[in-house]
Amino acid sequence: MLPKLGSVDAAGSVEAVGSVGPVGSVEAVDVAGWSCPLPLRDHPRVVMGHGGGGALSAELIENVFLPAFGNGPALAALGDSAALDVGGARIAFSTDSFVVRPLFFPGGSIGDLAVNGTVNDLAMSGARAAWLSCAAILEEGVETAVVARVARALGAAARAAGVEVVTGDTKVVEAGHGDGVYLNTAGIGLIPPGVDIRPQRARPGDVVIVSGEIGLHGVAIMSVREGLEFGVEIESDCAALGGLVAAMLAVTPDLHVLRDPTRGGLAASLHEIASAAGVGVAVRETAVPVPPQVANACAVLGLDPLYVANEGKLVAFVPRDRAEEVLAAMRAHPLGAAAAVIGECVTEHPGMVVARTAFGGTRVVDLPLGEQLPRIC
Amino acid sequence: MLPKLGSVDAAGSVEAVGSVGPVGSVEAVDVAGWSCPLPLRDHPRVVMGHGGGGALSAELIENVFLPAFGNGPALAALGDSAALDVGGARIAFSTDSFVVRPLFFPGGSIGDLAVNGTVNDLAMSGARAAWLSCAAILEEGVETAVVARVARALGAAARAAGVEVVTGDTKVVEAGHGDGVYLNTAGIGLIPPGVDIRPQRARPGDVVIVSGEIGLHGVAIMSVREGLEFGVEIESDCAALGGLVAAMLAVTPDLHVLRDPTRGGLAASLHEIASAAGVGVAVRETAVPVPPQVANACAVLGLDPLYVANEGKLVAFVPRDRAEEVLAAMRAHPLGAAAAVIGECVTEHPGMVVARTAFGGTRVVDLPLGEQLPRIC
Repeated sequence: MLPKLGSVDAAGSVEAVGSVGPVGSVEAVDVAGWSCPLPLRDHPRVVMGHGGGGALSAELIENVFLPAFGNGPALAALGDSAALDVGGARIAFSTDSFVVRPLFFPGGSIGDLAVNGTVNDLAMSGARAAWLSCAAILEEGVETAVVARVARALGAAARAAGVEVVTGDTKVVEAGHGDGVYLNTAGIGLIPPGVDIRPQRARPGDVVIVSGEIGLHGVAIMSVREGLEFGVEIESDCAALGGLVAAMLAVTPDLHVLRDPTRGGLAASLHEIASAAGVGVAVRETAVPVPPQVANACAVLGLDPLYVANEGKLVAFVPRDRAEEVLAAMRAHPLGAAAAVIGECVTEHPGMVVARTAFGGTRVVDLPLGEQLPRIC
Repeated sequence: MLPKLGSVDAAGSVEAVGSVGPVGSVEAVDVAGWSCPLPLRDHPRVVMGHGGGGALSAELIENVFLPAFGNGPALAALGDSAALDVGGARIAFSTDSFVVRPLFFPGGSIGDLAVNGTVNDLAMSGARAAWLSCAAILEEGVETAVVARVARALGAAARAAGVEVVTGDTKVVEAGHGDGVYLNTAGIGLIPPGVDIRPQRARPGDVVIVSGEIGLHGVAIMSVREGLEFGVEIESDCAALGGLVAAMLAVTPDLHVLRDPTRGGLAASLHEIASAAGVGVAVRETAVPVPPQVANACAVLGLDPLYVANEGKLVAFVPRDRAEEVLAAMRAHPLGAAAAVIGECVTEHPGMVVARTAFGGTRVVDLPLGEQLPRIC
């Protein structure tokens, strides 16, 4: 279990610890000769958690980037990708940088992540990824053979996902800066007509389905990076979900929400959906598929599997009357064989995720502050 | 003057020093337990020049990335962006990462570069940039006020360029890795009907026009980074060129080639065009607009202004019969006021750039091996 990161007040609303008002309400600080408003009173400097996909990331985005970009509401309303109209078609556009350590891990590499991460962000709007950009920031002194191995992994993952790398960039930074290879991909996908999948569309009554066993990616990274041994090699679930989503859309274009629970795990994804749609989410903890090796590792490390990152799983909010068919279609797909209903969307406790425990109790599933283990993607 | 980086053989073809055959023709090297072909015999490790936009960058891209991505010919044929068909429209797609040091410099910042660099890459295919992604890799410990200042610069540049940031990502790496802020942007632009601008379209007879004074960005970065003083503050020319290109296209959609001479300067851009189209380029050195402060700085530092980076200039190959009108349209635009004809495209010495010097002699303008000063963008 993570330390509690928020508190529930009497009215049931959750207040994140460390959140502050918008930029401009606080004192100025002098930076390199410029007077700037201090954006985050509790965080005058960036901490690792700002990259963890939890409350701290949200704070940085909402208080620093969105006001600066001047299109806060539009950008904030997006899920993992933007939907844009081009010549009568609708495209999805998304980007991610990848700074995972180590570059190669059981079940994948930074190259696989760079493809699958962006392909999956696009798939979560129902889009079939078509084109990727690939930009590398290399560290002076890294073996070119390592770069080649990363590039080959990326190319193989792109072919497997049916997406083409069409443009790129390479920069080099001095030895000691960077960590061998950082990658960025941006992707463009085509959204099929009639599809409108976004967090805001979650509705009370929706059935919540997860596509398979959770926690594998995060535990795989921990096992190689922290030198931990769990008696059995645990492989990342890193995979491209475009085919699985297409199989689900073949049942009905009216899927309400799709989300890939990466940084912050299932907890962060469910929390974001509950918050975006103003609904409650009720999860049956015993229904969440946690493989034994993840359960064991989490028990040893004192972690909650709900907060551990995945790279080849999705969570879907599906209208109740189509849920059975969608679940069957998922189970018929190799990447959804272990799909399971884990809960439902409710009118109670809007904005909150509540889990019923194995012992019949309930607990609030908070938005994590940061990531339990940084740099997992 | 740069050290000579290539040699011209008797037949007039240029051979780059350090270039090797494709991956697979050389011995294997063991990397982290994997057996990998050694991709670059002369460079078993990445050097700064691999990020310089010259011959070393090309070698890395051609020998490592393109074979791995499996679409070498398609990707290699591209200029700075990919042209893609979507729903009856043609879009351009491009990406760049930005690792400039320092983050703020006279005339701009990494935030301005991140917008203008990608907007300009799109503009070089005639596309009007519409949407940007923005991904930041932050270093733990960097002041959030610095991040906010970068974000505001980026937002202001986006508004000035008429482009919208629609999707983003934030990652954090440990203190000591990274350099405060690295940025990546990818951009989507719309290519007007009838426009087909790419390096392969250069034709003998084309007039070569540069949009203004060269060398300002590179010298501005040198002046602040290397602690050099040239008696006068030199500002980067960092600017978005979409409006200038639109003004040129209003004269004729039949512009043959556009290129923004960033890393490697005008020399690298002209060289790439000559090579891509299999034509010669003849430049009159005295016609190239070099402002006095750049000339002075280059004289002190022993640099050639043709190799110094620009961030708000373009070079155009224009059919001779429309060149006068296009030049007039450029001069009527604030970013093209100092536009000048600097040479022409010829049938002689295909693949080579030759400059006539002030003294009546000629010299071969080679593709630079790397960048004179790394990390200028």
